[in-house]
Amino acid sequence: MTRTVVESQTKTVTIGFDEPFCVIGERINPTGRKVLAAQLEAGDFSTVEKDALEQVACGAMVLDVNAGVVYNSNPDPNQTEPPLMTKMIELVQGLVDVPLCIDSSVPGALEAGLAVANGRPLLNSVTGEEERLEAILPLVKKYDVPVVAISNDDTGISEDPDVRFAVAKKIVERAADFGIPAHDIVVDPLVMPVGAMATAGRQVFALVRKLREELGVNTTCGASNISFGLPHRHGINAAFLPMAIGAGMTSAIMNPVRPVEMEAIRAANFLMDHDANGAEWIKFSRVLDAVKEGTPFPEASQAAAAAGSGRGGRRRRRA
Amino acid sequence: MTRTVVESQTKTVTIGFDEPFCVIGERINPTGRKVLAAQLEAGDFSTVEKDALEQVACGAMVLDVNAGVVYNSNPDPNQTEPPLMTKMIELVQGLVDVPLCIDSSVPGALEAGLAVANGRPLLNSVTGEEERLEAILPLVKKYDVPVVAISNDDTGISEDPDVRFAVAKKIVERAADFGIPAHDIVVDPLVMPVGAMATAGRQVFALVRKLREELGVNTTCGASNISFGLPHRHGINAAFLPMAIGAGMTSAIMNPVRPVEMEAIRAANFLMDHDANGAEWIKFSRVLDAVKEGTPFPEASQAAAAAGSGRGGRRRRRA
Repeated sequence: MTRTVVESQTKTVTIGFDEPFCVIGERINPTGRKVLAAQLEAGDFSTVEKDALEQVACGAMVLDVNAGVVYNSNPDPNQTEPPLMTKMIELVQGLVDVPLCIDSSVPGALEAGLAVANGRPLLNSVTGEEERLEAILPLVKKYDVPVVAISNDDTGISEDPDVRFAVAKKIVERAADFGIPAHDIVVDPLVMPVGAMATAGRQVFALVRKLREELGVNTTCGASNISFGLPHRHGINAAFLPMAIGAGMTSAIMNPVRPVEMEAIRAANFLMDHDANGAEWIKFSRVLDAVKEGTPFPEASQAAAAAGSGRGGRRRRRA
Repeated sequence: MTRTVVESQTKTVTIGFDEPFCVIGERINPTGRKVLAAQLEAGDFSTVEKDALEQVACGAMVLDVNAGVVYNSNPDPNQTEPPLMTKMIELVQGLVDVPLCIDSSVPGALEAGLAVANGRPLLNSVTGEEERLEAILPLVKKYDVPVVAISNDDTGISEDPDVRFAVAKKIVERAADFGIPAHDIVVDPLVMPVGAMATAGRQVFALVRKLREELGVNTTCGASNISFGLPHRHGINAAFLPMAIGAGMTSAIMNPVRPVEMEAIRAANFLMDHDANGAEWIKFSRVLDAVKEGTPFPEASQAAAAAGSGRGGRRRRRA
């Protein structure tokens, strides 16, 4: 059974065919978040702190950290991203105990993150592009970490799933040349918006199954891409995630501060026999009760987490 | 491709691998509904009428009609069910134009229903029990209708999915002896509650895939069984249905007057490429908008159906 082990200083998360679905929180990312970008340039990390705590409370098992901000004062990310990544990783791992996913398109930022991250972080990402393969795979080998492999290459993103499979296969083979085992490659087969490409869902389900059966790799995706541009997109996401899990998808990079999607994932875990006695579902159903009564999801999740761990004040007594 | 054709006087519904999921409305059934049972004994059909109209408005493509009431005045269903079935079928097909599913454990009631139903109804059901096979298959042949085949036999319901597959296979083979083709058998692989049997979900997904690949049959189930006894069971149902659809399930007998489950099914249809240009999803998203603003789901669905067909008053003008 394929197991991708990701670790913080104190916690191990296994991405695997026989494990609950791994939710990788995507919020700590200034791309497309102007306010956060401005805060980071000004040295204000309050949103990063809030996002770290909220995402973990809501059920993120790994946190993605992306420092991809373009400073107004210095437009060269090769200069600005590495020190910002260092700072953000140190901050986040001081606040929460989950493993991290170091996310950048700047190799220097990935290496800066690897140098300070505790445990065994997930690296995000390598692609099938020659330059990326040559830059990233040596880092993966040097730091002995797992890596997300995105199935596009120098020709771009193919609409043909067979081409995307072939790119993934090439990355796995090139990684093997570096001595990196397939269980340390987490393939992102690339999710297209179903509003633009009618076969987008079926493609992913078929690809995930094939990646698992033929390459033996774990898989991930940017889950919300599937519903891009559509009304009531959380409803699409909440059907997509269980279907992807049923097809064999083992993780997703997503916003965990969304009760609809998290409910779908927890239900799917239960239905895949990855929630012994439904204990997680029953715990989560109390959060849903609180949300129904008007408590925002992050607060309801934080209260439940505090009650469960015995932290955050007195434990409740039974009536 | 396997196609099970069900018809009313004016409408054809195809259950098939390349079709949108077929929602069979389960509400017209006095089993476990004391008020409805008492109404039927008293000759009051107002709830049946309401259930017929609401279910079709909410998206039921076929309506199950079950007359399984035990009268206080006459405890013999062999005497009471056949005339009640006749009356209910006539009433329902006078009100709505969807095909019907004639549902009874009393062969005389099935035959009474078959005698009056327009078009090509679905018969519900035969099992692998010898007595049922001998009583029901001749009816299926005589009236040339498709039939739901429930995978239990004289030994009861097996917890072993291989045994349930074998029962389904036996029914398909026995039907063939009567000249009934596999595409007229809709197998119910039996859904166990995941709260009682941890592998219940996985069993069904694997069974559906196998039934489809090896026997080439369509499938159905009593979908809500999966969440029996659990808190927030609609959340479990809403993950189960897309996962079952992804595995190849082609219909379910269920309550369509539930927005959460119907949203999951419509999203799954879109993700399976069974909703051209997302037209159905976009139409449905307007119903969800109305529900969000406080309109009950059946009313919002009825308003949308009336607007869509040009009935029910003036059409809206664009602002």
